[in-house]
Amino acid sequence: MKKVAVVLSGCGVFDGAEIHESVLTLLAIRLAGANYQCFAPDIEQLHVVNHLDGQVMEGEKRNVLIESARIARGEIKPLTELQAKDYDALLLPGGFGAAKNLCDFALKGADAKLHPQVESVCSAFAQADKAVGYACIAPAMMARIYGPGVKLTIGNDQDTAAAIRTMGGDHVNCAVDDVVLDKNHKVVSTPAYMLAESIEQAYAGITKWVLSVLALA
Amino acid sequence: MKKVAVVLSGCGVFDGAEIHESVLTLLAIRLAGANYQCFAPDIEQLHVVNHLDGQVMEGEKRNVLIESARIARGEIKPLTELQAKDYDALLLPGGFGAAKNLCDFALKGADAKLHPQVESVCSAFAQADKAVGYACIAPAMMARIYGPGVKLTIGNDQDTAAAIRTMGGDHVNCAVDDVVLDKNHKVVSTPAYMLAESIEQAYAGITKWVLSVLALA
Repeated sequence: MKKVAVVLSGCGVFDGAEIHESVLTLLAIRLAGANYQCFAPDIEQLHVVNHLDGQVMEGEKRNVLIESARIARGEIKPLTELQAKDYDALLLPGGFGAAKNLCDFALKGADAKLHPQVESVCSAFAQADKAVGYACIAPAMMARIYGPGVKLTIGNDQDTAAAIRTMGGDHVNCAVDDVVLDKNHKVVSTPAYMLAESIEQAYAGITKWVLSVLALA
Repeated sequence: MKKVAVVLSGCGVFDGAEIHESVLTLLAIRLAGANYQCFAPDIEQLHVVNHLDGQVMEGEKRNVLIESARIARGEIKPLTELQAKDYDALLLPGGFGAAKNLCDFALKGADAKLHPQVESVCSAFAQADKAVGYACIAPAMMARIYGPGVKLTIGNDQDTAAAIRTMGGDHVNCAVDDVVLDKNHKVVSTPAYMLAESIEQAYAGITKWVLSVLALA
């Protein structure tokens, strides 16, 4: 049974991991006959957003690992414990947490840096030539890991795509139910809620993405 | 297109709505060709649980509606705005939030009372003879709504079943991928994570539950 590491970035689309994408990723892994283990960095969130009104909750602090544990039903480990040799594949669902907590793309755009723990894990999977998948806005991290020319998608948002091209990524427009495969790097991306207008659209893309990554693993 | 109201109770299995159950409910509704609107009571959570270590986070306060908005991606309304006449069916996923925030079954067992807003909404759907579904621990509320003899399940936990029987509910043991239908009351229950040991098991039961409720609607 293939083992997949899933990296979460909190719990909620505006300040953490996108919940639908995360849950549907876990479902697709299990329906494909593989197993998963969730991980998240034990760090403070960039901020906490009230998901009802979209405003930052001033003074509120939350921890990425502790909040990610909500999606994982408590079954989660600190990202520092993730070793590429123990897993066949790595998946990173999206949500603003990927661009706010795992890296600072939401603040810095093309000047974004990855959190050192995230960079270390993602680089280890890349160097071990293992199958990896980035969804939604998470592909904004790919050029930092795979270098210039890596083929990827975040859907079709042209401002985001331009920033990614500045970072060296070869952004390809992609439909919500499809994926972009960079075969040389064994890495797959999909737009998910960068484009999805409903949960079943997100599910179609996420399923294809998970199956594509597992096929490479 | 059938319209389903989904009542959430926070965001996280230990103090709110069970996230997998909630997301899979939304997915199953859409895959069945129906539409949903999420609701939650605008009240404070009983408490906040650290989902990594299972301990109550002393001094931390969170609002059920605001946290539920994470699962709903911001598309949620206060429970006081839910009117039975506007919907074909009502669904209540589980998680401890159902037994801690929607009612106090987690504290009081057989002496449990429903939150007045929840009681009002659930009673309105029952009196209008509309199709309703309760999942996981949420069926612990059913005897208060439908009165003695209502057929229901929370799986096979004998202590919980005994408390429900004391309240007047006719508890029936049920497999994780199955449902219990009370045809007279047009209400369906399923064990979900009261029994599920994996997300795909939860999905099987949740899907059957959603389809059973929609078939009554």
